Amino acid sequence: MAARNRNRDFTLLLFALLSISAPAQQNHLTARQVIERIQKNVGVPWRSQTVDTFKAGDPDSPVTGIATTMMATFDVLQRAAAAGKNLIITHEPTFYNHQDKTADLEQENDAVLATKQAFIKQHGLIVWRFHDHWHARKPDGIQTGMIHALGWEKFQNPNNSRLFVIPEITVNDLAASIKQRLGIRTLRVVGDPNLKVTKIALNPGYPGFPAERHMLQRDDVEALVMGEGLEWETIEYGADASSEGKRKALIVLGHIPSEQAGMQECATWLKTFITEVPVEFIPTSEPFWFPKQ
Amino acid sequence: MAARNRNRDFTLLLFALLSISAPAQQNHLTARQVIERIQKNVGVPWRSQTVDTFKAGDPDSPVTGIATTMMATFDVLQRAAAAGKNLIITHEPTFYNHQDKTADLEQENDAVLATKQAFIKQHGLIVWRFHDHWHARKPDGIQTGMIHALGWEKFQNPNNSRLFVIPEITVNDLAASIKQRLGIRTLRVVGDPNLKVTKIALNPGYPGFPAERHMLQRDDVEALVMGEGLEWETIEYGADASSEGKRKALIVLGHIPSEQAGMQECATWLKTFITEVPVEFIPTSEPFWFPKQ
Repeated sequence: MAARNRNRDFTLLLFALLSISAPAQQNHLTARQVIERIQKNVGVPWRSQTVDTFKAGDPDSPVTGIATTMMATFDVLQRAAAAGKNLIITHEPTFYNHQDKTADLEQENDAVLATKQAFIKQHGLIVWRFHDHWHARKPDGIQTGMIHALGWEKFQNPNNSRLFVIPEITVNDLAASIKQRLGIRTLRVVGDPNLKVTKIALNPGYPGFPAERHMLQRDDVEALVMGEGLEWETIEYGADASSEGKRKALIVLGHIPSEQAGMQECATWLKTFITEVPVEFIPTSEPFWFPKQ
Repeated sequence: MAARNRNRDFTLLLFALLSISAPAQQNHLTARQVIERIQKNVGVPWRSQTVDTFKAGDPDSPVTGIATTMMATFDVLQRAAAAGKNLIITHEPTFYNHQDKTADLEQENDAVLATKQAFIKQHGLIVWRFHDHWHARKPDGIQTGMIHALGWEKFQNPNNSRLFVIPEITVNDLAASIKQRLGIRTLRVVGDPNLKVTKIALNPGYPGFPAERHMLQRDDVEALVMGEGLEWETIEYGADASSEGKRKALIVLGHIPSEQAGMQECATWLKTFITEVPVEFIPTSEPFWFPKQ
């Protein structure tokens, strides 16, 4: 091969490499860059103390696609990987505690944790939590998604986004309609099934007993639609309120169904400022089912 | 009327009064005396830090009867008062938090608390909690009652009272049989309905995620029968274990049904050393129900 040809070949090769790498670089949006855009767009100051941090994977990896979800369960991670989405944006923890601390489980050589971590590593997944700031957004991103899923925009109190006045309905029928609309298997209710209500509060997730009882203390709240609560706190309080003859009931959706649509809303929102990679909402499966006799 | 007759009448009246008051005094067992007998009989040293304290009423009131119960809900207090039992021995809180602190609710002029407190006062009820030491008893009083209610004595591991080996059964059928046996409306399950299991652990109440995962980490535990757990802790962990293909399932009874029979056991035990007043187990109603479509 003559020297000229070698030079020409080298130039062509160099050109070809540059041609490949230039568009590739444009697509190389990293997970960290995605989060920076979220921080710019969320509309509230970023907190110094927050659980909204990377939980697993390399933040500087290029993103192939984004999956938003309510809870990054093993099942969700499998479905995200199969769909080619390597950045998972989850509302709830990945590693079974609010801070996603893994030290205790690692010390115990916990096999459930180890399998999940191995799957994340093997598939190059990156997990980032979006909890505090998605709630802090005005209006609350979870609340917005849930109200939309329930079709309650028209009933909303203009001065308090958590309160609604709906056409009169029994607690049983309201619970049944929510169960059907949101596709919940194991929705549970506390209180009198025949109580007729119009005044509703919506507290998804786990806001805790003080927030829940403050809703139930209001004269303009008859039924509290909630995620989960401890049985010796909010649940006993709701049962007592009903036994005392007060016009109060709890409709307990379960944590995941009570916030799920808020992460669907998140996918819709992300698409308004992330266009380089596909964004998909992956619903988290309701963990519970009832035994068949 | 002659002086002699007046004197005789006075003597008869005095005698009659003494005749009435003497046996009455014998029956004047106070709530405090009942608890002292429990402390003497429970078989474990009394702790300085404990929630096993009086929660309402006057400990020095005479006891008309004793009601043991899982949770001193308003409904239970009503039934105890109607049955003439003024000392309520409850396993779980009366005032909606583990320490039964009422300051926050009082500051909020909480109507649910006020109605409950007024009922207790009006009916002269005394409420005492029996939690830590009934669990600490050897064997654990709650566990003993639940194992008896489940009919699992013959399956129990002689070295670990929380473990059982039962004839092979699917998770669905095991859950259905427990639901029927304990009369639970809203029992829920996590995991594969068709998984065949023999190795069972029983963790009633709310022992918390560490205790629950330590059970699930064991090779000799396939199904964990539990009370309640947080959905981002034990429930997500159980769902992941199942999704990862591990032979694990959760059978979630609800807090009250998971410990209820332990307070029936308590009534039986109390009768062995309290004979002056009637002792009755008053079951706490399961707070939850499912909506009918």
